[in-house]
Amino acid sequence: MSKTVRACLLIIGNEILSGRTHDKNLPYLAEQLNELGVRLAETRVIPDITQTIIDTVNECRAKFDYVFTTGGIGPTHDDITSDCIAAAFGVPLDLNDEAVKMLRSNYANPDVDLNEARLRMARIPRGAELVENPVSKAPGYRMENVYVMAGVPMIMQAMFQGIKHQLVGGKPMLSGSVGGYIPEGMIAEVLGKIQDEFKNTDIGSYPFLREGKLGTTLVVRGEEQADVDAAVSRITDAIIGFGREVVADEPAS
Amino acid sequence: MSKTVRACLLIIGNEILSGRTHDKNLPYLAEQLNELGVRLAETRVIPDITQTIIDTVNECRAKFDYVFTTGGIGPTHDDITSDCIAAAFGVPLDLNDEAVKMLRSNYANPDVDLNEARLRMARIPRGAELVENPVSKAPGYRMENVYVMAGVPMIMQAMFQGIKHQLVGGKPMLSGSVGGYIPEGMIAEVLGKIQDEFKNTDIGSYPFLREGKLGTTLVVRGEEQADVDAAVSRITDAIIGFGREVVADEPAS
Repeated sequence: MSKTVRACLLIIGNEILSGRTHDKNLPYLAEQLNELGVRLAETRVIPDITQTIIDTVNECRAKFDYVFTTGGIGPTHDDITSDCIAAAFGVPLDLNDEAVKMLRSNYANPDVDLNEARLRMARIPRGAELVENPVSKAPGYRMENVYVMAGVPMIMQAMFQGIKHQLVGGKPMLSGSVGGYIPEGMIAEVLGKIQDEFKNTDIGSYPFLREGKLGTTLVVRGEEQADVDAAVSRITDAIIGFGREVVADEPAS
Repeated sequence: MSKTVRACLLIIGNEILSGRTHDKNLPYLAEQLNELGVRLAETRVIPDITQTIIDTVNECRAKFDYVFTTGGIGPTHDDITSDCIAAAFGVPLDLNDEAVKMLRSNYANPDVDLNEARLRMARIPRGAELVENPVSKAPGYRMENVYVMAGVPMIMQAMFQGIKHQLVGGKPMLSGSVGGYIPEGMIAEVLGKIQDEFKNTDIGSYPFLREGKLGTTLVVRGEEQADVDAAVSRITDAIIGFGREVVADEPAS
């Protein structure tokens, strides 16, 4: 029996909740984790409020195998993630020598440019393991099962590439899909029967509209390629059985 | 004293957590709610798992003034939101006459086309108030402080336009912003001081990279236009004080 390894993403930042910034880290992390056999099981977007961050981190690190946070580790007053992580774990937030060294490497004239605000980025909860930031040097870190990463997608992605070898996953979820110019409501009943038959898969149904024509994409996810393929094949037959056209390149929604 | 009215968005669906579908409802809802003086205080993305949906709905409806859900109210087997809402409130899930009537209006030949699967969309928790769906007729609904809406953005938006007059907000958050070709770490210290001075505002700092030049957008949010304007003006002076160029149209990230 394979254990399902579950992760939670905490997106920290008022700018996401205000609608100003559109998160791009969720889809990236979801796909990367899936390849490693780790399921993104929940995501929370929370504001820059100390107690909310502390409580959410503590709840989620107990509940999930891995927690990833993005955002709030920059040099400005609104970057409070590290203070909150230290508080959540009940450890001091130290100026970390290794992190200072990393930061210095980012400046031609570190004695001038590495000012007090930038040094905030070298304050790391005691006991954490640093995560390299090849883009702008200010590191992320791992504290037990919590990975603290930057919010800027390019930096977040670089950090993730540096830690993914540490993650221990279960079986990756495989997926297959088929689309058809058929309304959801027409295929729903037979789809439910196919789902009952293929209990080792999850079949998702997603409507689309293309060039004025209504269609549905059916996505089958499961741990065994044979199950996925068989279910996709049955769904394809069902679409054809209704006399409807199968779509080769169904659009992602 | 104005009370802050807080809302939570629950995005329900495996397709968001797998990275396949990119949510577009959060930014829309955030901006719309803000105009009504309602703060989007948290968002959770949760999978199509019955107990998770029930528990999350119950936790969040107690914690926030309003809860909005998107997704999972279609005709297929993976649409389980209504079952979960009924269970969360401890009420039966009835076939709702008014909802059936709405659905019938969507079909030229309802006696044939309104099959059992489609009738699933007329199952509404007892006591709920329907929310019209001008696009595809299958309604959403309100159950106490929980609004249940479709996941398809076009439909979700139409539903929201139909219910927004019901929402009672506090003072809307006003915002102003200024960008400059200045690194965050350079302006961070003075920015912290400006934040300390303008305690009625929240100042957010967001780095950007444009044409190879590093810059920062500073966003000031507050309930009073005068506070917002004064803080933006002070930040603008600070950028100029560093001899840096102010950006007229700073990019959204």
